[in-house]
Amino acid sequence: MSEGDALGTVYLVGSGPGDPDLLTVRAAELIESADVVLHDKLPGPEILGQIPEAKREDVGKRAGGEWTPQEYTNRRLVELAREGKSVVRLKGGDPFVFGRGGEEAEHLAAAGVPFEVVPGVTSAIAGPAVAGIPVTHRDHASSVSFVTGHEDPTKEESAVDWDALAATGGTIVVLMGVGKLPAYTAELRDAGLDGDTPVALVERATWPDMRVATGTLDTIVDVRDEAGIEPPAITVIGDVAATRDRVAEFLENDGDRGGDA
Amino acid sequence: MSEGDALGTVYLVGSGPGDPDLLTVRAAELIESADVVLHDKLPGPEILGQIPEAKREDVGKRAGGEWTPQEYTNRRLVELAREGKSVVRLKGGDPFVFGRGGEEAEHLAAAGVPFEVVPGVTSAIAGPAVAGIPVTHRDHASSVSFVTGHEDPTKEESAVDWDALAATGGTIVVLMGVGKLPAYTAELRDAGLDGDTPVALVERATWPDMRVATGTLDTIVDVRDEAGIEPPAITVIGDVAATRDRVAEFLENDGDRGGDA
Repeated sequence: MSEGDALGTVYLVGSGPGDPDLLTVRAAELIESADVVLHDKLPGPEILGQIPEAKREDVGKRAGGEWTPQEYTNRRLVELAREGKSVVRLKGGDPFVFGRGGEEAEHLAAAGVPFEVVPGVTSAIAGPAVAGIPVTHRDHASSVSFVTGHEDPTKEESAVDWDALAATGGTIVVLMGVGKLPAYTAELRDAGLDGDTPVALVERATWPDMRVATGTLDTIVDVRDEAGIEPPAITVIGDVAATRDRVAEFLENDGDRGGDA
Repeated sequence: MSEGDALGTVYLVGSGPGDPDLLTVRAAELIESADVVLHDKLPGPEILGQIPEAKREDVGKRAGGEWTPQEYTNRRLVELAREGKSVVRLKGGDPFVFGRGGEEAEHLAAAGVPFEVVPGVTSAIAGPAVAGIPVTHRDHASSVSFVTGHEDPTKEESAVDWDALAATGGTIVVLMGVGKLPAYTAELRDAGLDGDTPVALVERATWPDMRVATGTLDTIVDVRDEAGIEPPAITVIGDVAATRDRVAEFLENDGDRGGDA
């Protein structure tokens, strides 16, 4: 950066779950006005399709099929800001929920780059919601906990305490938890949750080809296999998951965006 | 409803935390096009101020200062839909997070009224985020749990298991938890959380007069009292709350929307 250049600002922006109508007003404006949009695949095809190719930089996968290291993304954000660019770092859902946005914020601050956080609609809440499932309910769930099924692979053992999560008595929502579904449903049963506890899987929530599959802790692995549910998907565990059965007939979200798997 | 009348649709819409720019595109459109907007105070002054008086119905408080019973709101939603109206039920944050939106959805379905859920940015995540605090962090928090400090007053004892929440090892976010702060910080210390655990209070998150106050489990009640923090506010408990200190200097959200209390 040569003396006198103005530093650009980095915007850590949540795209919401994928439906462009669930972008915030601020996110939509910033995507429009930004010089560069750094993104991975999670914002989904509809939102990414609206961004001109010329200002998109995909930091999700490199040519060889490997994941871009976080260090590259961090470095690139600082580099672009030092060129005076207005930079949107677009993340699926909310940038500060299992999105490593916190690490990017700390890196930017350490490098002296001004940044703004633009919260988004998290798929952890919106996924269940558009399937007719409230993550909390006065009668069924006084708390809701969010965990990721896709942990840092460098961690030696799971940092998630499934016993404690089961003991909360609240709803449990697992993001990116399709692959490890057999493991954590077993852990939750071992922790004392009833095998009849309702479970729902919401695949590609709010995307045009969204699908929903429901079962119980005992049956959901078979349900997943029969329906062929694949990532990205949200898992909702708890009595609230049964709400879908009571409301789906009148739920208009289902009308134009998929339905039962 | 006379024969042949078309039923209106009810939209259960989240307003986000209060900044009109954090409305979703869909929410902004529906508020514009709706015949009636039923709301309480939680969407905040900026968003409510943009809705023409003529189509607003406040179901938050009645003239006498009493809270409107949920039964009234449920009945009114059905009544307006049967008049063929397009009805927005506008709720602060997300409609399905401690907002009784689930109950409204079930009531509408039982009455045969079509409805759509429009998820919003929850203040439980956005409040911390605009204060520079990510609710999850790869190094500090593998899970995040949301609870309300303002429980159903008809419940005889707390349904929240603070021991279990402490045992998760994740971030704990308390909504509407200013008044009961002394009680649950004590419960969490009794449950084994360190008195030095960072805690942040975010008052009126994203509103023009937003304020942030930080401390620890041991000090936060005094911090609250000295700063005069009042509802509505979000409490964030966990190591992530200390992130603010590392990033606030470069965080532009603070620039135009309040700062440290």
